[in-house]
Amino acid sequence: MDAEQFRRLGHALVDWIAETRETLEARPVMSSARPGEIRARLPREPPEHGGGAGDLIARLEADVLPGITHWNHPAFFAYFPSNSSYASILGDLACAGLGVQGMSWQTSPAATELEEVVMDWLRQLVGLSGAWTGVIQDTASTATLGALICARERTLGFSVGGLQGPGGALVVYASAEAHSSVDKATRLAGFGRAHLRVIACDAARALRVDALAEAIEHDLAAGLVPCAVVATAGTTNTTAFDPIDAIAAVTERTGVWLHVDAAMAGTAMVAPECRALWHGIERADSLVWNPHKWLGVGFDCSAFYCRDPQHLIRVMGTDPAYLRTAQDGQVSNFRDWHIQLGRRFRALKLWFHLLDEGAAGIRARIRRDLDNARWLAGQVAATPGWQVMAPVQLQTVCVRFAPAGLDEPARSAANLAIARQVNASGHAYLTPSLLDGAQILRVSIGAERTERRHVAALWDALQAAATATS
Amino acid sequence: MDAEQFRRLGHALVDWIAETRETLEARPVMSSARPGEIRARLPREPPEHGGGAGDLIARLEADVLPGITHWNHPAFFAYFPSNSSYASILGDLACAGLGVQGMSWQTSPAATELEEVVMDWLRQLVGLSGAWTGVIQDTASTATLGALICARERTLGFSVGGLQGPGGALVVYASAEAHSSVDKATRLAGFGRAHLRVIACDAARALRVDALAEAIEHDLAAGLVPCAVVATAGTTNTTAFDPIDAIAAVTERTGVWLHVDAAMAGTAMVAPECRALWHGIERADSLVWNPHKWLGVGFDCSAFYCRDPQHLIRVMGTDPAYLRTAQDGQVSNFRDWHIQLGRRFRALKLWFHLLDEGAAGIRARIRRDLDNARWLAGQVAATPGWQVMAPVQLQTVCVRFAPAGLDEPARSAANLAIARQVNASGHAYLTPSLLDGAQILRVSIGAERTERRHVAALWDALQAAATATS
Repeated sequence: MDAEQFRRLGHALVDWIAETRETLEARPVMSSARPGEIRARLPREPPEHGGGAGDLIARLEADVLPGITHWNHPAFFAYFPSNSSYASILGDLACAGLGVQGMSWQTSPAATELEEVVMDWLRQLVGLSGAWTGVIQDTASTATLGALICARERTLGFSVGGLQGPGGALVVYASAEAHSSVDKATRLAGFGRAHLRVIACDAARALRVDALAEAIEHDLAAGLVPCAVVATAGTTNTTAFDPIDAIAAVTERTGVWLHVDAAMAGTAMVAPECRALWHGIERADSLVWNPHKWLGVGFDCSAFYCRDPQHLIRVMGTDPAYLRTAQDGQVSNFRDWHIQLGRRFRALKLWFHLLDEGAAGIRARIRRDLDNARWLAGQVAATPGWQVMAPVQLQTVCVRFAPAGLDEPARSAANLAIARQVNASGHAYLTPSLLDGAQILRVSIGAERTERRHVAALWDALQAAATATS
Repeated sequence: MDAEQFRRLGHALVDWIAETRETLEARPVMSSARPGEIRARLPREPPEHGGGAGDLIARLEADVLPGITHWNHPAFFAYFPSNSSYASILGDLACAGLGVQGMSWQTSPAATELEEVVMDWLRQLVGLSGAWTGVIQDTASTATLGALICARERTLGFSVGGLQGPGGALVVYASAEAHSSVDKATRLAGFGRAHLRVIACDAARALRVDALAEAIEHDLAAGLVPCAVVATAGTTNTTAFDPIDAIAAVTERTGVWLHVDAAMAGTAMVAPECRALWHGIERADSLVWNPHKWLGVGFDCSAFYCRDPQHLIRVMGTDPAYLRTAQDGQVSNFRDWHIQLGRRFRALKLWFHLLDEGAAGIRARIRRDLDNARWLAGQVAATPGWQVMAPVQLQTVCVRFAPAGLDEPARSAANLAIARQVNASGHAYLTPSLLDGAQILRVSIGAERTERRHVAALWDALQAAATATS
């Protein structure tokens, strides 16, 4: 492909993206493709000859779009929002176009230094103190794994030599509502399933600090070595908040690493009135939140903050001859701050997005979504046969169709049927989930284009589906 | 930003990328920015008000370009190539524009199924059998960490319960020339530095199988548990190839996992005449190679292949209620195939690139680069005072200025000075490295636009710098 063809196809692709975005509302949210349908459209063998990219937009239309579930659709209420603003798309395009690899400062100084600047902007936006230093990682799963490995090594005196402390096996603690990535990271880091303590929650689905303290005491008495607590600020199921300040009092007393998973809720902290929800955050050792969720920076862009980057560098640093540069010691080489060696220039999309939306714009959007969530919860609570299943702390509303006439198994079946019917309609997409074994409907508000009318339409659709399944 | 502004800025940015690419040759390869220079150009506080992305191209020109080291420059000879073709840039733009998150099949069926197709195309392109299944990961470092964790768990019977085998600690083996990511992964996975055996190499810098077999026997006799061997196909320093077939004979006999790091060399295998270099590859358990290097797909795009994906799923799978879908069991949910949960739609850039270049185009480009490397080695070997320091197996040539009149410390100083002078000139960029403690000049050929004349100009520049430093 020469520059001329690139310009032509690039302009057309930009137009196609704009056109697709602007017509999202008329498209089904969830793809209705059947398993194997997209695969069957494509040749089984690679092209021997090149030149086949000229019709890429036709290919996207015919072979890809039918298999796309639209995360930026205004009726996307599933999982958590994964917005990607126009400005962020342009940042990703600039990243791809520059095609640099920022593993070391020297391999593109702008990639390191722009990241330092925008990560400090983000720190200020959510009201963290200057004691925190940030680095962009790919996902919260990786960031949490990295944090647990750092905790493991700090506990073992950075011996980087296995998992046995002098006093026995190392133990990790998290609540029963913690994200699956905590369990996964505990396994991957080698602690072992047997050494993840699942701590009970209170009625609001927040970690019970008395149960945490008791578990730590019990393990110490048994000769085990408490190593890390993962506290969640905004759980996946219901956006419950663990009491970080009270947890920190326990971890400080016992010398245990405190990592905070605020993957979803970090964005909320741009609005100062939300910050009481993570009170005590300054007492944590590390923190991850995902600008690639509610904030609007395209996936992947996960913000990892820690109070002492030397923990990262001592554990994840490498220094082979072929990576040494003349500036080592004067600069940050971010390759030593995470698992990967190579790095994309992800700071560009964060930069463009923040320039475009500004703090005031982000706050206004967050408050709109919080308000929409409260409105929906109010509607549900006022409707006979329906229940709000958890406190609405942020933008996620867990509801249930539970008319008096249905017994428990029938209620779960009805709610799963409602979710599948709404999702299959193409008019909205939400996540069926479980709370204490009961099937619920989890409505996560926060796509960039979701306004009150979309939430109201969803509520109408849920009620209609409930009537149809009854 | 509205659709109209996105279109306008998007077109301008596409043009800017084309313009920057087409004028690369007139730009310095390595940025001459001083530490802190880029950071000082940017505001210390985030913007309160939005609307600031309108002049993003002026900002890229003024604040970013001075800090860019151009990996796609025809005179980029550092590290390994990290090409990103025009077609790949468009694929990344489509990925950002669609903004989907492909963690599960249902969250965008096309993301999973297109990936299945293009990863199978890649498999065919490098001549692997149908026994291999592929998944895109971000980097070889992560892929190797995942492989070692799978090896650890297979050894322990997937108990996911720590690091002690019934017979003692688990041990990993790799050559003294293995990439730093192997040491890093061994530490991160918890094996511990003490349980990575660094196996001696032969004169060609390939792992000595007799030394490997001896180390394994020794560990078994000591009650330890041999767990994994990482063989390198194309080392970072000199692109040496470990003898995979002979290593496999050892790992099969001892039940040890064999992971092959072909991060750089995988691309070479598109040319059948190179495949003898990784003879025995079909006997390995897992394999990683990076299309984001020589192949030309923009970073990040790492191809991980294994013979039994159940190893990945058993170790990295999660199944919380909020991730269950109606299609589970019928489809691949790639979130269970790696450390991350969320996934970008990276298959698009791989697809566009393969459509655009075709197998024949890739082969021709690889052969051009191999030929240029042999030409350079021939020139160096024929020049008094210069030496070729390692066999030229692929596109990397390790050379040294070593005139009779200089003693050993002076030779190392001269070679470091030559590298720094050439890099600072902006006319080329190469990596100074060490071989057996001696400073060398490592010339890695393979940027998409590097032709013979660029290699010849580098050779002239090296000789001129040598004269200047003598």
